[in-house]
Amino acid sequence: MARNLSENDLKPVAGGGLLDRRLLLKSGLVLATAQSVSTSVGADEVDPSDPPWQRKTGGPFTTYGTPSPFEKYVIRNIGGNRTPAGDGVSWTPLEDLEGIITPSGLHFERHHDGVPAIDPALHRLVIHGLVRQPLEFTVESLLRYPMQSRFLFIECGGNSNAGWHEEPIQRPVGAFHGLVSCSEWTGVPLAILLNEAGIDAGASWVIAEGADAGLLNVSLPLSKLVDDAMVALYQNGERIRPENGYPLRLIVPGWEGITSVKWLRRLHVTDTPSMTRNETAKYTELLPSGKARMFTFVMDAKSLITSPSPGQKMYGADTYEIRGLAWSGRGRIAKVDVSADGGKSWAEAHLQDPVLPQCFTRFRMPWAWNGKPAVLKSRATDETGYVQPEREVLVKERGRDGYFHYNAIVSWAVDEDGEITHVYA
Amino acid sequence: MARNLSENDLKPVAGGGLLDRRLLLKSGLVLATAQSVSTSVGADEVDPSDPPWQRKTGGPFTTYGTPSPFEKYVIRNIGGNRTPAGDGVSWTPLEDLEGIITPSGLHFERHHDGVPAIDPALHRLVIHGLVRQPLEFTVESLLRYPMQSRFLFIECGGNSNAGWHEEPIQRPVGAFHGLVSCSEWTGVPLAILLNEAGIDAGASWVIAEGADAGLLNVSLPLSKLVDDAMVALYQNGERIRPENGYPLRLIVPGWEGITSVKWLRRLHVTDTPSMTRNETAKYTELLPSGKARMFTFVMDAKSLITSPSPGQKMYGADTYEIRGLAWSGRGRIAKVDVSADGGKSWAEAHLQDPVLPQCFTRFRMPWAWNGKPAVLKSRATDETGYVQPEREVLVKERGRDGYFHYNAIVSWAVDEDGEITHVYA
Repeated sequence: MARNLSENDLKPVAGGGLLDRRLLLKSGLVLATAQSVSTSVGADEVDPSDPPWQRKTGGPFTTYGTPSPFEKYVIRNIGGNRTPAGDGVSWTPLEDLEGIITPSGLHFERHHDGVPAIDPALHRLVIHGLVRQPLEFTVESLLRYPMQSRFLFIECGGNSNAGWHEEPIQRPVGAFHGLVSCSEWTGVPLAILLNEAGIDAGASWVIAEGADAGLLNVSLPLSKLVDDAMVALYQNGERIRPENGYPLRLIVPGWEGITSVKWLRRLHVTDTPSMTRNETAKYTELLPSGKARMFTFVMDAKSLITSPSPGQKMYGADTYEIRGLAWSGRGRIAKVDVSADGGKSWAEAHLQDPVLPQCFTRFRMPWAWNGKPAVLKSRATDETGYVQPEREVLVKERGRDGYFHYNAIVSWAVDEDGEITHVYA
Repeated sequence: MARNLSENDLKPVAGGGLLDRRLLLKSGLVLATAQSVSTSVGADEVDPSDPPWQRKTGGPFTTYGTPSPFEKYVIRNIGGNRTPAGDGVSWTPLEDLEGIITPSGLHFERHHDGVPAIDPALHRLVIHGLVRQPLEFTVESLLRYPMQSRFLFIECGGNSNAGWHEEPIQRPVGAFHGLVSCSEWTGVPLAILLNEAGIDAGASWVIAEGADAGLLNVSLPLSKLVDDAMVALYQNGERIRPENGYPLRLIVPGWEGITSVKWLRRLHVTDTPSMTRNETAKYTELLPSGKARMFTFVMDAKSLITSPSPGQKMYGADTYEIRGLAWSGRGRIAKVDVSADGGKSWAEAHLQDPVLPQCFTRFRMPWAWNGKPAVLKSRATDETGYVQPEREVLVKERGRDGYFHYNAIVSWAVDEDGEITHVYA
């Protein structure tokens, strides 16, 4: 199966056939999938058997490109509650993507009142409340301020909540965990704007409000906003897409997605949370102890194996690359361990550079599958030492009333036919 | 103009009002562009004077997003020779973008025979010639190999060639220097595929061929391909766009764009260059010495100020952020110096993290413009110590017959009215 590798190279580093991650960095870990051909193949002259696109001039230049028609099934999966109109989600197809960037057109959506069609010339951002001088900013004026760019994930606080179900849900990974995406965001550090308004000594909270029909709002601690939040104008190099907050989005690194308020129109500086729907009816959860979790802003470390994953099929006993994503709201991913025997043994995956804080990290692990049943898991550890928990540990701690912040280890079962299913194991 | 900054903070670090780059990292470098407003602004109740998008539910969820209609002028600028059909270029609008990622829809194009509409199920990649065993790969088979992801720029060898003109061309920066773009590319390290075919001892070159109607080909040293080339399948997270090589593109980090052969169908391993049109009629240049430059693959270090830049307008004496891009085919950018007095004095710009090899690096510099005429320049230095040359130095070395590899320092003149023009200074 593999050439130019010693027996020692191919010695498993954990149960179920996991191989040393360093094999990915040297050539020779070969999957025998190429076909031998006669050397006459690929001769220069145009052959009538050549495919049609080699026999005539191709298509024209375009001012703005789109994916190949052959990729038309790689789309956001629209789901969730769509009543009332404009309330729902669309999921990023994580199983179809590679690297760490989510194309802006496939960034997940969560709206409560649809996508407002905002004219940037008329849009305003107001900072008021406990400030020396309330200020109003046009988009044009914000473009003049010093900017920063950061690669950051945004994850809905309700992402992966099907994990709380009694029975494991059977869906492609993107339709289960795809309310998370990662982009390069560029904008103005909020500290600069708050400083210009002049924060009163007694201020401690900020109510951020969007310009959608529901004027979605959320209360945020002032300290976090001063620390590392930004008012973003650009996503993945170009101006933010409408469904992601055009023309302005508050970006709160590592915190639940609702805090990164889209279509940002107002920052009301106060000395107390507003206790609106998004702090009471939602985002607050009863624990087995009888106490409630509230203001659970930070998204804990999490990881997923995107390939192989449910809906995909193994093609027989061979050497595979296990691929996945890991992220943490607390900072950088320190390591990702992978298991091919349901968690009995683990080995450390290769982390793709660059490894950035509050950003997707792509991990890769070589796996010699012997064609027998296996259970794959991945377990993320972040730079604070936080370790992604097994599902039973999370359920024990959070109880059966959980809805938000599901970040347990995910398990995929592979059977003899190479079919992959989601299991609780 | 600026609050909470000392006189010392605002002391220029170079002529023409360049300020300490560290001011970008602390709040207080404020541009007085916000308007004071009464605290009644932004009250909760919906006001009839509210913009229309706050008065009704917005648009629906979409399976694949697109930019706001208000951004319809941010497009690739189609230009260059379009005779015969399919031969030409389209330029990335660098002046409209921020951060380091180029949206895939705006990645520059250079085609000789249009964009082939390739069916990935029928496409094949062949490796043959001086190999132990010629191999043919389907796209499906390549997806099974170990992959890597890298953030890399691709620059056309002919980018910026208007710089050789006797008179400075007056165009937006993207229509002058926009045959360069930067993406996250993911694919299979070519060393793995070449190793599987088994390279003969005498092999030293590879002829890479695309599947467009012209079967574009180029000769590449085997050593570079084994070192760091990849067969890419993904660009910015999703499968490569048709105009950028769908389904397969050879990526040769840091080398002139033509070497990153799109629609890759064939790698012919040889012991000599093929001396086709792309090594003889093109990409070879006569020097003043009478000698010719040939196989000048590496793209030298280069930088550009994207804001302010021609076509934009200053809005009066104030503090500005100078923004730009730098890159080098030899590795990382070590520093970017900026001048506001036509090169008499220089100060070091802030480099935005992450700074990656053969990748765009975004630089930023605070500038207190006094409203008087100024000449802005940027000068990149890469980790090998190579310094971007002044124009007269480049012309002296390369002569008047130059066409490719123009990487001289670019100068923008700002007049009292805040108009910006391209100058040779």
